[in-house]
Order: sequence, then structure tokens, then C-alpha cells
Amino acid sequence: MPHKTPSFLVKRSLAASRTFNPIRNLVDHMKVKPNPNLPLIPLSIGDPTIFGNFPPPENVTSLLGGKLTNNNLHPPTVHGYPHSAGSWDARQAVAKYLTTSSYSFKPDDVMLTCGCSQAIDLAISVLANPGEHTILIPRPGFSLYRALCDSKGINFEYYDLLPHKKWQIDLESLESILRVRKDGKKIGAVLINNPSNPCGSNFSPSHIREVIDVVSKYNVPIIADEIYADMAFNENDKFHSFSDVSQGDYPVVHVGGLAKRYMIPGWRLGWVGLAHQSGHLNEVKQGILDLSQLTLGPSSIIQGILPQVFEETPATYHFNNLVQLRENAETIRRGLEGIEGLEVIPAEAAMYLLVKINPQKFKHVKNDVDFAMQLFEKESVFVLPGEVFQIPNFFRIVITPPKDKLEEACNRIQRFCSKHLTNI
Amino acid sequence: MPHKTPSFLVKRSLAASRTFNPIRNLVDHMKVKPNPNLPLIPLSIGDPTIFGNFPPPENVTSLLGGKLTNNNLHPPTVHGYPHSAGSWDARQAVAKYLTTSSYSFKPDDVMLTCGCSQAIDLAISVLANPGEHTILIPRPGFSLYRALCDSKGINFEYYDLLPHKKWQIDLESLESILRVRKDGKKIGAVLINNPSNPCGSNFSPSHIREVIDVVSKYNVPIIADEIYADMAFNENDKFHSFSDVSQGDYPVVHVGGLAKRYMIPGWRLGWVGLAHQSGHLNEVKQGILDLSQLTLGPSSIIQGILPQVFEETPATYHFNNLVQLRENAETIRRGLEGIEGLEVIPAEAAMYLLVKINPQKFKHVKNDVDFAMQLFEKESVFVLPGEVFQIPNFFRIVITPPKDKLEEACNRIQRFCSKHLTNI
Repeated sequence: MPHKTPSFLVKRSLAASRTFNPIRNLVDHMKVKPNPNLPLIPLSIGDPTIFGNFPPPENVTSLLGGKLTNNNLHPPTVHGYPHSAGSWDARQAVAKYLTTSSYSFKPDDVMLTCGCSQAIDLAISVLANPGEHTILIPRPGFSLYRALCDSKGINFEYYDLLPHKKWQIDLESLESILRVRKDGKKIGAVLINNPSNPCGSNFSPSHIREVIDVVSKYNVPIIADEIYADMAFNENDKFHSFSDVSQGDYPVVHVGGLAKRYMIPGWRLGWVGLAHQSGHLNEVKQGILDLSQLTLGPSSIIQGILPQVFEETPATYHFNNLVQLRENAETIRRGLEGIEGLEVIPAEAAMYLLVKINPQKFKHVKNDVDFAMQLFEKESVFVLPGEVFQIPNFFRIVITPPKDKLEEACNRIQRFCSKHLTNI
Repeated sequence: MPHKTPSFLVKRSLAASRTFNPIRNLVDHMKVKPNPNLPLIPLSIGDPTIFGNFPPPENVTSLLGGKLTNNNLHPPTVHGYPHSAGSWDARQAVAKYLTTSSYSFKPDDVMLTCGCSQAIDLAISVLANPGEHTILIPRPGFSLYRALCDSKGINFEYYDLLPHKKWQIDLESLESILRVRKDGKKIGAVLINNPSNPCGSNFSPSHIREVIDVVSKYNVPIIADEIYADMAFNENDKFHSFSDVSQGDYPVVHVGGLAKRYMIPGWRLGWVGLAHQSGHLNEVKQGILDLSQLTLGPSSIIQGILPQVFEETPATYHFNNLVQLRENAETIRRGLEGIEGLEVIPAEAAMYLLVKINPQKFKHVKNDVDFAMQLFEKESVFVLPGEVFQIPNFFRIVITPPKDKLEEACNRIQRFCSKHLTNI
């Protein structure tokens, strides 16, 4: 006896309708198609696995099969529920992985998450009340920060990064917000992304020190999104974490994961690590533990192999990836060098770089979105306009595709630019 | 140059401090220890993997290794980012799995999640605004429903289940809330859990029809938590889903996952499936898609093997599990039969059953919490008091441990009860 179909439509919540992804919004509303005579070169998506030139470590992929078919594991097995913040072995492994000579992470201060995205979600959720706290986020920056705040009804404000100072934080811009907001709305946290998506930058220890000095005047915790940790590829500039530089003396909520360094973004294994020598974040830790019980953490099978992932992956694996990234960044720099109207801001880390556009140099190119759309339509090269990272008149190039694709992409960009130059 | 340690403590958010897990609260505050002379029998945790008598299907565990070491998979590989709502192949596989002769799920209406917990989170988040909508949840019921609402600041109200009517929904209790609330606060959804944790019940198609008839008078969507789908173990009473009975004519947000039926709760692969013949939930679908972009779905490697998990697991695997569950439920029923002060409410599905206690029959046993704590301390048997499921003077037994453990547990419960009987 089928029921009479009711006529009502079910509405979605505010949280859902506030959740906005600028990249998806761009892609969904693109009316242009790539040039059918040229194969598409996507330089848009930060997924290093697409072309096969950045495979995961072999020891990592082969680990899973071995563990899972081993039914002799003592109970609770790898198939059951781990602790909602992760199995102790896995938390211990991450704590060891994060520990430097300056700061030792306690396993108890590490909580595993479904990818770094969930770690960022937890970090923001535990530090800010909707309508009460403001989260300071970088401009340009990864669009998820804003999307998470918007979805949760949490205020955010941008501080600026300086393109011609290696994308360092504009400390005056940062402090001016902290100073004003101190008397008004409360600041929940300063979120810092280093190495940066979309900038491909890597802060020096002294810059990190400066940032901590500014923020610490206002007693605001730092969320350090270090998902690209240890992916600085210039030989003389190593990656330094905020917890390493602060030595745990200032409260830092580090977030990270396996995604980028092990080239397995789809596996969804992330973490939060609290660096707080004097227990500044004890209440926050309890809050994250409580929140983690709502979704129960990442897949047990990935947790099960985590200690071996860290211990058994050869240093050469990471080294070779960094060499390839450095070469790719250099390929793009050289490939776009001297093109009128473009300025490559060199990358030193992560998987991206930004290129500045001078729209006045080009005919019929109003701005970065226009540039990206026309480049897609005419040359089948897909780059993301800076607008989606809150930095107009730039575009972002993903540097993980193989060298030959990048060279071809640069040639096409050059052709596109020369055709559109105003002075031709 | 170490920074001077600041003295401030970082506070956690309201969302974190509102997130309350009654089970954890109980366990964390337990002052009693089990009897050191008796090995502990945990009948408290709904994890079927603990004892090894419910292993995952062998074909499933062996699948992972094969897929992962196969680097010949065409890009995007299983290691990269799938669509945030899941890969198309995996969504298609779930749609096929959920489809019955009465309702065909479209792959487009299926969205994958990190376990069923995240599916419930998304379903509630997309249907209710904090402070505006009320979610109706079952009493007794799984504590996550309340925890999620509390954490998000979403109102909830309980409708009752009837222990002596096979734990069917008290339709009068349900309708009285719908009727009153219609003029006041809006109802976001009626959340129904069938088969039920903690009841071990399974609704008949005619009861499901009755429920839909009541709810449909008020144009309120149904969230059907069917994580224990197809786990009805009485031969004559098959499981029927809400989407099957409604034939898609009434909007049903089904949530489910691999966890229980495939005995891999730790893997964290869940889903939302929208049943809405006439597009009632189109806006909700868009909302879930938007929300899913905040955390990007479950692990790609589990998604990668999902079609084969469904296709290749032999029917005998599920059949044998159901036989064992039925035998275990019967073992407990027989083992506790005739104990004065206790009444077993028979289970027909899922992995639990509830036992009613008459505290007046026992000396020094005030209530269900007291009963559970003393049973733990004296007989090293750990059951969860009904209080954590909002049903005082009951306790919940997990029926997945091996038969000999259950028999031993029943003997100890019998001994405990006879020692504490008031008339001895």
C-alpha cells in the first residue's frame, strides 16, 4: 500500500547552506570547455597521485595486505574500534614522528583524525564559539579555513602574507587585528599554514620566532597547519615546525597527516598534536577527546600500519620526492621566466607556486579568473585563479605533474600570453 | 632563545564542553575494580571483533593487499582524493546494495562517510538549525544521537519504545510530540534506529508503515539509522528498511555502513542514502554534498574495494553470523531465565539485548547503575546500565562474545542475583 506522495520539500540547514567551496563553485559554474585539439593539462588539483610520478612508498602499500591477512593479531584486532583518538601505538608513533630535539610530543597529546581536514575542523571547533570568537586566517590561504568557519558560524579575519618577502606573514597586519580585537571580539586562534598552500613558501626559524613573539603578546593560541611539514625542497632551508621553534613554551595546536609527504591523500589519516610544555592546552585536549567521540577517528587498518609507515619508509623515498619537486618548481620558473605580464613567485616547499598577473598587459583579460578561464578554453591548461585563495591577480600552479607536462604547459601559457599582449 | 612561558590557559569551546558521552562518563568515573579472582567478561562494548569469533569475511581482508600492490590501476589511483562524497564506483555499489524490489537507490543519492557516526552527524547537521529545530530520538537509544545534538546545540526530544511490544515505537508518544511541536519549534527529523541498539529489536513492515503514516501527517523527514540492516536473526522476521516499505514515497534519510554486517567497525566506512521518489530531498542532497567537502569522506582504499566487498562476500558468511547471533541470544535468554528480579526482553536482531531489573528484589542494589557496578566488582562481568541509554532499571548485554563466555557470564549473574535477593 504505497503512501500518498507528500508535496513538501525538505530544506537544508543553515550550516549546510553556509558551507561554500570557492573552487567547486568556480568549476561547477565554468561555461567554457578546454580546447578539443589539445590534451588537457590539469595544474589545478593538489593531488600528487594523478600522474603516477609520485607513487606512495612501496613498503607502505605492501604493508596493508600483510597486516590484514594476519589473523593471529591479539585482540582487539585491527578490524575493531580503536580508541576514538586513535590506538595508543599509532598515537605513540605520531608523537615520535613529531618530536624534535627542541620539543618532545607526548602520545597523550596526539589525537588521530580522518585526514588533516578533520584535524583542522577539530582545532577550530575546540577553540572558537560561533558568534563569539574570531579565527585569524592567512590571505592567500587554503579555502577550507574559511569554509569551515562559515559552516560553523565562526567569525574569521584575514591577515596578509607578503609575496615579495617570501610570503612571510605581514606582522603589522597580524598585530593590528590582534590589537583591535583584543578589546572587542575574542580571538580564538591564529591559524598559520607553513609550508603554505597556495604559496609554496617555507618560514625560517627566525620568522616563526617573530610570529610567536607577536601572537604571544595577546595570549592567543596558534593553530599550525603543517600538513606540508618536511616538504621544503631548497637544500639550505629546512622545514621548522612551530612546536620546534617555540620549544613548547607557547601553546601550539599542530595539525598534520600522512597525505602529502607519503603521497596518499586519499587514505585520510591526519592528526592533532598539542605542544604545550606547561599544560596550557589541557582543557583543549579534553575538548578534542570529547569531540573525537562523535566520529571515532580514522580507519583502524591505516592506524594499524602507522608505526611501520614511519619506521620503514626509506629516507631516499622522501629525498627523491623533494628532488623531483625542486626540479619541477625550477622547470616552471624557467618556463615562465621573462613572459611579459607574468611574475613567478619562486616556491621553496609543498606542491604549489603562485604566479602574479598584470591584467593591464593583456587584451580582453580582465582579471585572474578571466585569465584562467581563457587559458583553459584556448590552451587546455587548467590553473586555479588567485581569487579562490583570496588573492586576485595571481594564479596557482600545482607543481607535481611530470616535467614534460609542465614544460608543455609553460609553452602553452607563453603562447597564450604572447597572443594576448596589448603591445602586439 | 626560549620564549617566556605565558601563564594563560586556553579554554575549550562550548561545542566541546557540551559533547558528553554517558558511557565514557560512567567508565571514567568508575571507582570499582573487577574481582581479581575472576577473569573479566566484557558484555559492555558493541565491538564484535574482540573475541575473534566474528572475523571479517576472508575475501574482504585479502582484497586490500591485492588492490594496493597493483600499481597498474589507471589514474586517479586508489591513493588519491576520491570525490568528497565518494568515488562513483563505490557510490554505485552502495546504491545497488541498498536497492530492493520496492525502491531503487540512485548512486547520485548515496554519499560515503567516515563510518555511520559521520553519516548520522551529516543527517542531523543538514536537517536542523541549532536553537530552531528539534530532532526526535528514541528512548532507549544509542547515546550518540543525544551527544551529537548536544554538541551542536540542536534541541532533541525523546519518543518512547515499548519493551513489551517488541520495542515498537509508542506511536502515541511520538504523535503527541509531533502534534505539540507543530505549533512551536520545528521538528527537523524523526530519527529511528532499526534494528535497534540497545534493544536488539526488528520492526515488522506493518509497524514501519504505521510509523510512516504518523510522521507523514506532519511533513517531517525520517532519518533511518539502519546500521544493523539485514541482521535480523529470527528466521521468520526479515529486516525491512524504511525506504523499502515507503517505496521512496516519503522522504527517508537512510544511514548505514559496513561496520556491523561485515564485522569491521574499525574500518570506518559508512554512508547516507536518500530515498525520495519525487525529489523531496534534493536540497538536502546538495547540503550533504557541501558539508562532505569539509572532511572529504572515508579512506580511498576502502572505497576502492567496496564493490568487491559486496559482490564477493558469500551469503554463507552472513548466514553463519546470524546463526551464531541467534544462538547467543538464546544462550543468554536460557541462562537468565527464571532469575528472580530479572526479565530478559528477547532479542531478534543486531548485537544486543536488554534485561529488566526489579531493584526492589535485591538488597543493597538501588538501581541499574548500582547493579552494573556491583556485578563488575563482585563477578567481573561488565554490562552497561540502562541509564546510559535513557532507560533506568534495565541493563544491556552485548551478545557477540563466544557461547562459553556468555554461559559463564549468565552463571555469574545468577550467582550475584541469588546472593542479593531480599527474600534470602
